[in-house]
Amino acid sequence: MTRPLSIVVVEKDRDRARMIVDGLREAGAHEVVVIGDEVGLARRIAERNPDIVLIDLASPSRDVLEELTLATAPMERPVAMFVDRTDGGLTRAAIEAGVSAYVVDGLRPERLTPILDAAIARFALLQKMRAELAATRRALEERKVIDRAKGLLMRARNIDEDAAYALLRKTAMAQGRKIADVAQALVTAAELLK
Amino acid sequence: MTRPLSIVVVEKDRDRARMIVDGLREAGAHEVVVIGDEVGLARRIAERNPDIVLIDLASPSRDVLEELTLATAPMERPVAMFVDRTDGGLTRAAIEAGVSAYVVDGLRPERLTPILDAAIARFALLQKMRAELAATRRALEERKVIDRAKGLLMRARNIDEDAAYALLRKTAMAQGRKIADVAQALVTAAELLK
Repeated sequence: MTRPLSIVVVEKDRDRARMIVDGLREAGAHEVVVIGDEVGLARRIAERNPDIVLIDLASPSRDVLEELTLATAPMERPVAMFVDRTDGGLTRAAIEAGVSAYVVDGLRPERLTPILDAAIARFALLQKMRAELAATRRALEERKVIDRAKGLLMRARNIDEDAAYALLRKTAMAQGRKIADVAQALVTAAELLK
Repeated sequence: MTRPLSIVVVEKDRDRARMIVDGLREAGAHEVVVIGDEVGLARRIAERNPDIVLIDLASPSRDVLEELTLATAPMERPVAMFVDRTDGGLTRAAIEAGVSAYVVDGLRPERLTPILDAAIARFALLQKMRAELAATRRALEERKVIDRAKGLLMRARNIDEDAAYALLRKTAMAQGRKIADVAQALVTAAELLK
């Protein structure tokens, strides 16, 4: 790996935890913390805010999978999950929950580095797409609300579109706010007053 | 796996190809085709249009990786890549090229099923996000072009915004086209004529 990582390992079995930690330390001077029981897992992971969470599970059920993805927040940080067995439905559920690596019967210390690399790269790719989607959605919503606000101004003041937009922009500049925010306030006010 | 898959295996080594094919056939009645050399790889894969492409590579270089991702089109179909060794840069490059599974030293027949399941689920997830992003971008672009067309009509005919939109909609309905297409034609024409 290119840099030492901060890693939280979720593992109940002490021997396996030791094996994982040794493997990770050998692969790089990582800062590794093991969490052995699930009490307060979400809070403890959020507090540490690690680069990646590594979960080792003997045999996952749908309930355990759901609990663990809730606690580890795979949409907010990379999560690599190692399981001994699975089925098609569980695999799909893990991937759809956002787990960045879902590895069956593959927890061997010498294989950890490329798996963590891949999980981190995959998380970054998805995160980039999610950010792009959010920005595009926001732009579309802003455009819609600005359109509605322009329409309100055009009718209320009997002005044309350009004048309505200029008025929104002037107000936004005077108040140090975004045009979309001024437009949203206007639309909300108009709905309250009608 | 839930259903038999159509799989293309890209593998030069005959013994390994046989091992992979046997493993896949054991895991389910898959329709498997092996492509042993890379001549015309892109065309041959496109013709078969398989559910998933499985690539086995002893030791990938950046050039080989680039060629293979061009030929197998991991944005259009799931691609699972098995390599014997890698480094952080290669791993990132493979994931960023869209490879749905990038597995180091893990090509054991009994592990193929969950890996292919995961690759297919991951591809579906990314494909859904890409489609959502494309649709949102299109909606934003259409809204922009409709706005510009409305502005052109308002000035040219001295009508208000609602009348401009009604005119666009009437024209679109009369011609059996989308409002955004009529708006785009108008914007293009106005640019040519000015």
